[in-house]
Amino acid sequence: MKNVLRNAWYVAGWAGELEGETLLARQLLGEPVVMFRDAAGAVHALADRCPHRFAPLSMGRLCDGGKAVECAYHGLRFDSAGSCVLNPQGGTIPKAARVRRYPLVERYSALWIWFGDEAEADPALIPEFDFLVPEHWAVGTDHMLVDAHYELESDNILDLSHIEFLHPIFSSAAVRRGEIECVQDGSTVWSRRTMLDDDLPPFLRQAFGIPEGARADRWLDVRWNAPAQLALWAGAAVAGQPREQGRVTPSAHLFTPASETGTHYFFAIGFPRALGPMAETLAAQNIAALRGPFQNEDKPIVEAVARRMGTNDLQSLKPVLLAGDAAAMRARRILQAMIAAEAAAAAAPATAQPA
Amino acid sequence: MKNVLRNAWYVAGWAGELEGETLLARQLLGEPVVMFRDAAGAVHALADRCPHRFAPLSMGRLCDGGKAVECAYHGLRFDSAGSCVLNPQGGTIPKAARVRRYPLVERYSALWIWFGDEAEADPALIPEFDFLVPEHWAVGTDHMLVDAHYELESDNILDLSHIEFLHPIFSSAAVRRGEIECVQDGSTVWSRRTMLDDDLPPFLRQAFGIPEGARADRWLDVRWNAPAQLALWAGAAVAGQPREQGRVTPSAHLFTPASETGTHYFFAIGFPRALGPMAETLAAQNIAALRGPFQNEDKPIVEAVARRMGTNDLQSLKPVLLAGDAAAMRARRILQAMIAAEAAAAAAPATAQPA
Amino acid sequence: MKNVLRNAWYVAGWAGELEGETLLARQLLGEPVVMFRDAAGAVHALADRCPHRFAPLSMGRLCDGGKAVECAYHGLRFDSAGSCVLNPQGGTIPKAARVRRYPLVERYSALWIWFGDEAEADPALIPEFDFLVPEHWAVGTDHMLVDAHYELESDNILDLSHIEFLHPIFSSAAVRRGEIECVQDGSTVWSRRTMLDDDLPPFLRQAFGIPEGARADRWLDVRWNAPAQLALWAGAAVAGQPREQGRVTPSAHLFTPASETGTHYFFAIGFPRALGPMAETLAAQNIAALRGPFQNEDKPIVEAVARRMGTNDLQSLKPVLLAGDAAAMRARRILQAMIAAEAAAAAAPATAQPA
Repeated sequence: MKNVLRNAWYVAGWAGELEGETLLARQLLGEPVVMFRDAAGAVHALADRCPHRFAPLSMGRLCDGGKAVECAYHGLRFDSAGSCVLNPQGGTIPKAARVRRYPLVERYSALWIWFGDEAEADPALIPEFDFLVPEHWAVGTDHMLVDAHYELESDNILDLSHIEFLHPIFSSAAVRRGEIECVQDGSTVWSRRTMLDDDLPPFLRQAFGIPEGARADRWLDVRWNAPAQLALWAGAAVAGQPREQGRVTPSAHLFTPASETGTHYFFAIGFPRALGPMAETLAAQNIAALRGPFQNEDKPIVEAVARRMGTNDLQSLKPVLLAGDAAAMRARRILQAMIAAEAAAAAAPATAQPA
Repeated sequence: MKNVLRNAWYVAGWAGELEGETLLARQLLGEPVVMFRDAAGAVHALADRCPHRFAPLSMGRLCDGGKAVECAYHGLRFDSAGSCVLNPQGGTIPKAARVRRYPLVERYSALWIWFGDEAEADPALIPEFDFLVPEHWAVGTDHMLVDAHYELESDNILDLSHIEFLHPIFSSAAVRRGEIECVQDGSTVWSRRTMLDDDLPPFLRQAFGIPEGARADRWLDVRWNAPAQLALWAGAAVAGQPREQGRVTPSAHLFTPASETGTHYFFAIGFPRALGPMAETLAAQNIAALRGPFQNEDKPIVEAVARRMGTNDLQSLKPVLLAGDAAAMRARRILQAMIAAEAAAAAAPATAQPA
Repeated sequence: MKNVLRNAWYVAGWAGELEGETLLARQLLGEPVVMFRDAAGAVHALADRCPHRFAPLSMGRLCDGGKAVECAYHGLRFDSAGSCVLNPQGGTIPKAARVRRYPLVERYSALWIWFGDEAEADPALIPEFDFLVPEHWAVGTDHMLVDAHYELESDNILDLSHIEFLHPIFSSAAVRRGEIECVQDGSTVWSRRTMLDDDLPPFLRQAFGIPEGARADRWLDVRWNAPAQLALWAGAAVAGQPREQGRVTPSAHLFTPASETGTHYFFAIGFPRALGPMAETLAAQNIAALRGPFQNEDKPIVEAVARRMGTNDLQSLKPVLLAGDAAAMRARRILQAMIAAEAAAAAAPATAQPA
C-alpha cells in the first residue's frame, strides 16, 4: 500500500483475540499478517505467506507449544522470528526460508503492529489510552470492516456535528449551537465541542447522572493522533457546575487501513473498575449499544461517501469546507506531512560520515 | 460517461415514482441523480452528492415542505435550484456550496431529464408518446436494470424477428415470412413488420378480437428516436380488412444508460380510457404479462450478448448482418452522427461575433 | 488467453456429459465453447457465439436430429462444421456466417479438444489413460472449477508430500521419510514416491488388502504430460513382497485452463471390470470419496495460494524450493519450452519451397 505512514504503530487487533491456539489472520496496510500468542503469553506477528509455495500460514496450526507455526500445505515450520525451524522433507533448511516478522506489542487491551523500520519501533510512540488499561478499567471492545479510506473515518469522528443528523438518539438541542475549538498540540489535534445549558433527552440525562428537570453542560472532546487513532471523551455536568462534578465516558476509535479502500475500525469503551462489578456490565452494554449506530448509521454513510469519491483524493474534489472541518483538515495536513517526510527520508542518500 | 448524447432527453423514472417525501436515487449516464417532487407538484433533479463531504443527498430527507433536501451527514440543505439554503454550523454559506441541478420534465407519465447544455433543454424535443398521456390512457409502467449497453436494447426492439425464437408465445406461423420495411423520417427510424393471412394462436386472437376460425393480418410497427426511445404498435385485423377495423396495442420501450455497461429499461403500455374501467385492468394485467418475457427471455439473452461482446464495439466485432438488422443499423448510424456532431461542436471555438 | 499451449489436447468434459439434446457450454482457454453429440453419436465443438449478434449458441437448441444448433435469438442454424445452414429471414446465407469449429475427440471416457492448428490435431497425441477405457474399466468421473492457475494444480499433484499435512486421512507414518524419484522420459515427467515398511492406518490397509498386523510397502507414482494431464497410481503391497502382489488404484487428474485465473479440474478413478459388478460400486464410492478432500482440502489451499500470488508468475516471487518440488519444476520448464517453441514457430516466416 502506498501513501501510508509506515513508521507508526497501528492497531492489528484486540489482545483478547489471541487465545490458545488461535492463528489470527488479518490484512493490514495491504499486507497479509498472521498473529499468535506463545505459551509465555508474548504476542507475535508474521507475514501470512509461506516462502515455499505461498500458502497462508494462518491456514496451518500453532505447534511446539506456541513456538512455531506449521504451514498447512507442506508442513514447514516457522518460529516467532520468522525463521524456518523445520523442513519435513529433510535436508538443510534453505537460508531464504524465512518470513518477515513484524514488531507486535500488547498495550491498552490492543495489539499494536509496526510496518516500518524495525529499529524505530519504539513502544513509547504508542499514544496513551489509559482508559483501556485492563487493570484499572473494564474495557468493551469490538471490530468492524468499513469499505472506505481510513482518513474518512478520522474525519467522521473529528466533526461530531454529524451527531445531530446521523445519530438523533445521541443528540440534543444544543449540539448545533455548540462551541467548537480546534487545538494542535505538537502532532496531536484536539477537537472540542461544548454545549452549555443544554436540555438533554432522558436517555442521555440518565447516562450522565443529570437529575430530572436539571439542565446540563455537555462536552465532546476528541483527540487525534497519527495515523488515525482517536480518543473521545463524552461528558456532561449539571449546568454551571464544574466538569469534575459531572461524568465522562471515554471511548477509543482506532482505524487501521486494510487496503487502499478498506479500513479496520477497532472501537472500545472503558469504565473504571472503581465502579465495582457494574463496570464490566456497563462496558459490555455500552460497547453493544455503540455497534448499532456505528454499523447502521456511520458505516453506510461513510461507505456511500467513499463510493461517491471513487479513487479521487479529497482535495482534488474541492470539498466545500465548513467550520466543523477544521480539526479534520488539520489532522490530514499533519499526516500528509509525516508521510511526505518519510518518503523524503527513504529517497535521501545515506548521510555521509563526516571526515 | 463518454460517447453518449448529452443534449437529449432521457427517461429518469416514472412520474408515479415521485410521491410524498420520496427521494428517488438513480444512476443515469454514469452520474448519481436524486429526484423529488415539491409540494406544488413540480419535479426536480439534483446531483446526488453533497458538495461538503460528498454524501449522497438521497440518503437525507425532503424538508421545508418539499422545497429543500437535507443532507443526512451534516445537515446542509439545498433547494431545487441546487443552492445551499442552510448551513447548520452557522456562518455564511460558501458560494461553492451548490450542487448541479438537471432540467426535469414530467410528460407522458415519465420523468425526462437533460444532461447537456441547459439552454437547449427544450421539452418540445421530447418524442411524442401520446398513448402514455394519463388523462386519456390507462398506463401500466415498469422498470428493470439490464447489464448491457443501451444500444443492444434498441437493436432488440428494432429486429422483432427474434419473437419467433425468443418469445414463441407471442409468435405465429407468419412472423418469419413477414414483410419488413425500414423507413427513415428525419432522425426517426421506423421498422415495420407485416404478416398477412396469418393463423394466430388463440391467446393472440383473443387479444386482438379476431373471431375463431378467421385468419388475420398482423403488424408490428416500431418507431425509434435517439438516443434510445422506442414505441411499438402491435396490431391485428381480420385478414383483408383495413387496419382501422382491427385492434392496436401501443407500448413504449425507453432505454437510459445507467453506465457504460448497464441500462435502465423503462417500459409501459397504454389502453384508451374510452374502454371504461377495463382500461386500468388491461393496463395492469398487460404490464405484468410483459415483465415475464422481458425478464426471463429478453434480459438473459441481451446480457449474454453483452458478455460475449465484452468491451468491444459492435462494428469492431464484424457482425454478420441480415435483412432484419437494417433498422437497427440505421438507428445506430444516426445516433453516432449526433454524438459526433455534439463532440465537434464542443471542441469548436466559440463563434466570433461578426464585425 | 496468452502464454498457453494451443497445439495440444485438453479435456473439455466427460463423455457422459453429452447426452440427448444437451448443449454443453464451457469456457476453455478463455474461449466460450459449446459441445454436443449428433444422432450418430459423434461429438462436436463450436465457438459458443453466433456470428450474427453474438448470442451464445448454447442458449439455443439442438435440432435437425442433432445435425445443427439453432441460435436462441434470431434462429440461425449451424452445422457441426460451423457453417450456417439456415437463415430464417430468407435470402442468401452470408459467407461470413460461420463459427469456428474445434476438433473434439471422445477417448478414455473424456472429450478432448484442440485449440491450435487443426492440421496438427492428431488424436495419437492424447496421452494414454488406459484405466479410463470404459470397455475394460468401471470409471468414476467428476469435475470442479478451481480459482487458480492450472500449473498450481499440476504442482499440487506432483508434490504429494502435502498428503501428510493436507490429507491426514490418506497419510501414514512413512510418507514423510519416503524416497522421492523424479524422472523425465521425453516430455513426460514421473514423480515416484516410495514408502517401505510402513504402518498403514486401517482405512488404507483395507483398501489395499494388507492383512491386519502386517506392514506394507506403499508407493505413489505420478505421471505428468503437458499441458496438465496427470495420472496417479497409488499402490501398496505387504512389506517385502513384489509390487505385483499388491493392489494399485489409478486415478486421473486432468486440468484445463478456463481462463488466466480459473481451472477446470476433471478427475476420475478406474476399477477393472474383471472385479465384476463390484467395479462399478467401487468407482462410484471412490470418486465420491475423493471429492471430499479435493473440495475441502486441496481447493481451499490452492486457491489461497493463488490469491497470495496475485497476478505474479511463480518464479518472479522467488519461491524457496525443496526436494519435493523437483518434478513440478521439471514439468513447468518443459511446458514453458513448448509454449515458447510454439510462439517462435508462429512468429517465423513460412518455410520457402525448395527450388
